[in-house]
Amino acid sequence: MRKRKGILVICDGLGDRPNPQLGAKTPLEYARTPNLDYLAKNGICGNVHPIAPGIRVGTDVGHMEIFGCSSDEFYPGRGPLEAFSAGLDIETNDVAFRGNFGTIDDERLVLDRRAGRITKDTDLLASSLNGMLLSDGTRVLVKELTAHRVAIVFKGKNLSVHIQTPDPHSSGNGEKLLEIKALTEEASAIQTAKNLEEFTQKSYEILKEHPVNKQRVQEGLLPANVIITRGVGQKKFIPNKSSEFGIKAICIAGDQTVGGIAKLVGFDYYTCDEFTGGFDTNIMKKAEKAVELLKADYDWVILHMKATDLAGHDNLPLKKVEMIEKVDHIFGYLKEHLNKEEYYISFTADHSTPCACKDHTGDPVPTLIYGDDVRVDSVSQAGETDFNHGGIDQMTAQDIFMVQMDLMGFTKKRGA
Amino acid sequence: MRKRKGILVICDGLGDRPNPQLGAKTPLEYARTPNLDYLAKNGICGNVHPIAPGIRVGTDVGHMEIFGCSSDEFYPGRGPLEAFSAGLDIETNDVAFRGNFGTIDDERLVLDRRAGRITKDTDLLASSLNGMLLSDGTRVLVKELTAHRVAIVFKGKNLSVHIQTPDPHSSGNGEKLLEIKALTEEASAIQTAKNLEEFTQKSYEILKEHPVNKQRVQEGLLPANVIITRGVGQKKFIPNKSSEFGIKAICIAGDQTVGGIAKLVGFDYYTCDEFTGGFDTNIMKKAEKAVELLKADYDWVILHMKATDLAGHDNLPLKKVEMIEKVDHIFGYLKEHLNKEEYYISFTADHSTPCACKDHTGDPVPTLIYGDDVRVDSVSQAGETDFNHGGIDQMTAQDIFMVQMDLMGFTKKRGA
Repeated sequence: MRKRKGILVICDGLGDRPNPQLGAKTPLEYARTPNLDYLAKNGICGNVHPIAPGIRVGTDVGHMEIFGCSSDEFYPGRGPLEAFSAGLDIETNDVAFRGNFGTIDDERLVLDRRAGRITKDTDLLASSLNGMLLSDGTRVLVKELTAHRVAIVFKGKNLSVHIQTPDPHSSGNGEKLLEIKALTEEASAIQTAKNLEEFTQKSYEILKEHPVNKQRVQEGLLPANVIITRGVGQKKFIPNKSSEFGIKAICIAGDQTVGGIAKLVGFDYYTCDEFTGGFDTNIMKKAEKAVELLKADYDWVILHMKATDLAGHDNLPLKKVEMIEKVDHIFGYLKEHLNKEEYYISFTADHSTPCACKDHTGDPVPTLIYGDDVRVDSVSQAGETDFNHGGIDQMTAQDIFMVQMDLMGFTKKRGA
Repeated sequence: MRKRKGILVICDGLGDRPNPQLGAKTPLEYARTPNLDYLAKNGICGNVHPIAPGIRVGTDVGHMEIFGCSSDEFYPGRGPLEAFSAGLDIETNDVAFRGNFGTIDDERLVLDRRAGRITKDTDLLASSLNGMLLSDGTRVLVKELTAHRVAIVFKGKNLSVHIQTPDPHSSGNGEKLLEIKALTEEASAIQTAKNLEEFTQKSYEILKEHPVNKQRVQEGLLPANVIITRGVGQKKFIPNKSSEFGIKAICIAGDQTVGGIAKLVGFDYYTCDEFTGGFDTNIMKKAEKAVELLKADYDWVILHMKATDLAGHDNLPLKKVEMIEKVDHIFGYLKEHLNKEEYYISFTADHSTPCACKDHTGDPVPTLIYGDDVRVDSVSQAGETDFNHGGIDQMTAQDIFMVQMDLMGFTKKRGA
């Protein structure tokens, strides 16, 4: 089978619904997108389900599916994913959490579950806890992530995920830490709950005396005096898609979670300081890097852009339109530098984040694939409504992964 | 429920992609097909996935799915299918292989894995090995197939499929037979590997001294001095679709593999010398036979045509167009002889074989069903692009099997 290369641009949270601020058009329909329109007119298009109709997914699950992995089978929970992103060593029987640096008082009243959105010196705070030994011999790894976020791994014997973690998921209205307790009667659950209680209490005792926090209090800032955990999970076997298909793939992203998931399925990950995961990211530089990597030895480059999702969460439809127009600009660049006889150019999203909903929804996501031998359909411009008539409409994210692998020539034949 | 009869024409490898030699049309779109266009305009159409989007299948798997069998559940591997096609007795615990007559030297260097594409006297070579008794009491059945191909069955105790077979899959560049070995530590795998090693060595010792080979060497031809095996598998339970639906069905094909799969799912099989499985097959005679069988007591006739696939593998788009126009001609005949109030006329493919790819791809296959009470959709001509808007678009081959059974009145009601 002949082989070709391809690029997939993922606009996080791109899908939307008709918005009253945009004359009942979606941001993608409202935006001026001459390049995406060209690709839509000369490619195959459709609205694609991240998993199935009406199923809402997070960024992590959405990307696992785009990368061809069933999240039903392989999603390990957010804790292990964050531990992996942070570079922590996590093995099969360990238990991992994601957590926040938060602010509590002696009665465990949660004053702020993000410690005033602390951004500085969390590396010093994390390292004061990293390596902690609990009474039963369990060792704790702690590593800071972006801003107030932190990854935690328990390395011990007979640990369980069947426990209630303390994060109340909101604060400032009299919420206390939830009681840390076993959710089953297994000895392992009871022991893990004891361990988490011990870790939470010790983190409070150590952090409240930490010089970084003494300094913060002097400056009138909230002290980051506890780690509030959630997202407990264990490592699972995850298929290596790079070996499975014999494809050399890399993900370019500012967002660490997306990069972590790419690594988890066996892809390489490229980032740099100018890829911020925010509205100010340098997307043209991402496109240039993508072309450079494709012209080198990569078969498949995934280019991720977070800003469309942020605009959805903040209900900023015009900002979302602006970000889509920026993305359209890079498609002009890609089209110019990657000829259609050698490269496929594709476009999708991990989920919809309609501005008016300010959260992810289960709506399918606008998707297209362009190349010189795709079976061009009758769609003539980019947009959720138009894509209803496309040749890949109603497929799933995993289908689209397989369709791309098949077009590029990386699938194996079943039977003979 | 009232019953009707139906004919399904399968054009092997028919699906294609826009081809530069055909003005960016597919062969089906480029071909002059007044009869198929008529059926498309007055029937229900769609592009149908052999299994799911982007999944590439072989002819064997593709036909199992068209005949309503999940290949995931029931595909036994190519060895047992070939043994079945060859008429060998294969039981549940036997292990079967497909193989080639090949040419090796004393060091097991593979000079030609097809023994100069031997076509003559393979029946004599096969019968010199048939019935061989191995040291552990396993008996070996050997039966020639078309050209250099051969089917092998091991009948013994505690046999396993978890072994590496010796076929290097290419030859003439210094390849040796692969080491025959167990792939697991099970005693059955170790014993089966020993058996296959013994059979391979004995086949060499017997065949190199065979008069047919002495004669070949004298004529300057490569001797067929070994059997090189691959495609190991065991018989699986395969549902009998004929009993399951109470339908009397028959497959008309020149291709033995297709005929074998039809028999495997419980259908009858009809062939004759004029059905060659090549470009020169007598397709009009197939159509006449189909009408004759339908007017007799068959409920469902499947008419298979291989030539479209061959044209795809050989990258001959104009030859593929010519074959499609031949097929179109027989649809004129079928339309004339089978009135639409009594018969459904359907059309599909087992997979796509785009000429430019020279191999099977995962693209969905153009499919239509015509009859006086189908819900006619808006499609007005036959072709991959037009079928995107059809009423059966994006279904799977198994779906289409069920839709045909249901239209003909052979499905059972679930519930009451």
